[in-house]
Amino acid sequence: MRAALYLDAGKVVVDDVPDPVLQQPTDAIVRVVRSCVCGSDLWAWRDTFKRAERSRLGHEFIGVVEKVGSDVGNLAPGDFVIAPFCYGDGTCEYCRAGLQSSCLNGGGWGAPGEDGAQGEALRVPYAAANLAVVPDGSPDLPEERLLALLSLSDVMATGLHGVRMAGVTEGSTVVVVGDGAVGLCAVLAARAIAGAERVVLLSRHEARQGVGRRFGATDVVPQRGQEAIDAVHDLIGLGAAHVVEAVGTPQSWETALGVARDGGQVGAVGVPHVTPSIELKPLVIRNLGVRGGIAPVGHYLPDLVRRVVAGELDPSPVFDRTLPLADISEAYGLMDRREAIKVALVP
Amino acid sequence: MRAALYLDAGKVVVDDVPDPVLQQPTDAIVRVVRSCVCGSDLWAWRDTFKRAERSRLGHEFIGVVEKVGSDVGNLAPGDFVIAPFCYGDGTCEYCRAGLQSSCLNGGGWGAPGEDGAQGEALRVPYAAANLAVVPDGSPDLPEERLLALLSLSDVMATGLHGVRMAGVTEGSTVVVVGDGAVGLCAVLAARAIAGAERVVLLSRHEARQGVGRRFGATDVVPQRGQEAIDAVHDLIGLGAAHVVEAVGTPQSWETALGVARDGGQVGAVGVPHVTPSIELKPLVIRNLGVRGGIAPVGHYLPDLVRRVVAGELDPSPVFDRTLPLADISEAYGLMDRREAIKVALVP
Repeated sequence: MRAALYLDAGKVVVDDVPDPVLQQPTDAIVRVVRSCVCGSDLWAWRDTFKRAERSRLGHEFIGVVEKVGSDVGNLAPGDFVIAPFCYGDGTCEYCRAGLQSSCLNGGGWGAPGEDGAQGEALRVPYAAANLAVVPDGSPDLPEERLLALLSLSDVMATGLHGVRMAGVTEGSTVVVVGDGAVGLCAVLAARAIAGAERVVLLSRHEARQGVGRRFGATDVVPQRGQEAIDAVHDLIGLGAAHVVEAVGTPQSWETALGVARDGGQVGAVGVPHVTPSIELKPLVIRNLGVRGGIAPVGHYLPDLVRRVVAGELDPSPVFDRTLPLADISEAYGLMDRREAIKVALVP
Repeated sequence: MRAALYLDAGKVVVDDVPDPVLQQPTDAIVRVVRSCVCGSDLWAWRDTFKRAERSRLGHEFIGVVEKVGSDVGNLAPGDFVIAPFCYGDGTCEYCRAGLQSSCLNGGGWGAPGEDGAQGEALRVPYAAANLAVVPDGSPDLPEERLLALLSLSDVMATGLHGVRMAGVTEGSTVVVVGDGAVGLCAVLAARAIAGAERVVLLSRHEARQGVGRRFGATDVVPQRGQEAIDAVHDLIGLGAAHVVEAVGTPQSWETALGVARDGGQVGAVGVPHVTPSIELKPLVIRNLGVRGGIAPVGHYLPDLVRRVVAGELDPSPVFDRTLPLADISEAYGLMDRREAIKVALVP
């Protein structure tokens, strides 16, 4: 089969790899229908993180179950499924508590030694605990619906997690820092799921502003740094009780804390790939709360699948380009140059 | 009148100062019945913070109202009152939301230009919004009751705030890092107010361990650093869902995060006087929450006063010494040398 492989910074190719096989009775083999490129995939592309040569890439996919191990009772070949971007064993103390991202035996696709989603098929460990079946799902669904479902494997669930971690409540005011796919999905989650009344999106990119407004952003602030903080205060006074930080750089954190009102809560889903730290003193003096991080997607999937299938939720506009898997290098390039918000891949 | 004045590191004296006078119609003059020394008072004593020569000291007191301004309708001379350690105007957006510590016009006793509580009397700004009247209170209450009430002006309210910020719920397991008066009060708040089932106190000081157990600590861990973290995990498995950080040093933070289970919440009330910062990456990867800080004491006072007056809550054991105001230097020394947990002062 064909799959994307990482070669070096800026070098990703599609090449032949062995077909996946069942290794454990809890495994399933899934044929990928759509996968995509994540902002975090760009770290190795940009040489921020080192990655093994010829390692598999991609951690978001929807697909069709092809084979199941003998212990996978709730899935059958032909089922149309969504995978969370990291998997858990479904039985440990953390999984039982809904924190699958901390599973004691879990892992993530595209990690060393694991299959990746940017390919034709992959082996899914602990399949019964992780794959969410889409009722009446099939590869023949309208493209928009396929992309909406694909978004649930990471960005939509992560945006919702940020909103939950920020404690967003019905009728509240929220500031979203970051106009990547996760930030935009946080706007949608804040409005369509958590019931926020006012959502201020920080974005200076016209196409992203458009998606943000379509997702329910009531205000868009194009400034950066202190000017952005001032602009938000001009709009909403003392600041927001709820802030979603969806970038993860020292500058974005300064902005996130600057637009929060004292006593506010920052939901942190921008993975801090340049490892910023935050000073405690302002947090303590201003009674600010900070809560991260990696979304336990499996915890959110059943409800999100129901909403998408019911037509209540459509995050598909975060995908503004779709390319064949063979064009993987162009897909990375488009996102790296911010010419696409998020690129879907057809194997 | 007589009051404590800061001279230099390690030098605090009692000297004559002008009697306080009403300056605003919202002021009251309060004659102090008991005040005390706070751990934070030691920062200037130890030269960690600079402080103006001959500045007033102390921010915790109970006393009797002597005079009220023309706008103070709810207080009368003779009322027995408790003051929160920082005051608010009672009308700003933050005060109305119960976050008096962020009052747009507030301040704190002992701050530059303000009266201090370690003295015979002081002027209380915005008296109506800040002083809590003790029903049937008087200077003739038993000493234990006086000290229990005195604790509400800071350490008991701050301990409770840490417990609330850590999200402690009925039947939960809590780790308290820090055996100062605030940490000990957090133990009491977790057990007697929030209903925690298990409270692990980190303390290697015998007298403090005793108060901690009296306050309801179910386990005491005397180790420090990684050994303390290991000992807590031996006791409670994956770690605590709720941790109160009541020290504020880089080491105590490392311990607090180390004893938390993934998905846990740290309530941070140890003022970070050496300004540690925390790395975001572990927070994000482990889905940890952090929430500070300076307790909005006024928000908690009515309920705490009711509990103490009803005999349901007795934090008085955090005061293990009482000295006359004239012995102020000895009071600071006892606390600096950790020979006393907290020293009460009789003017």
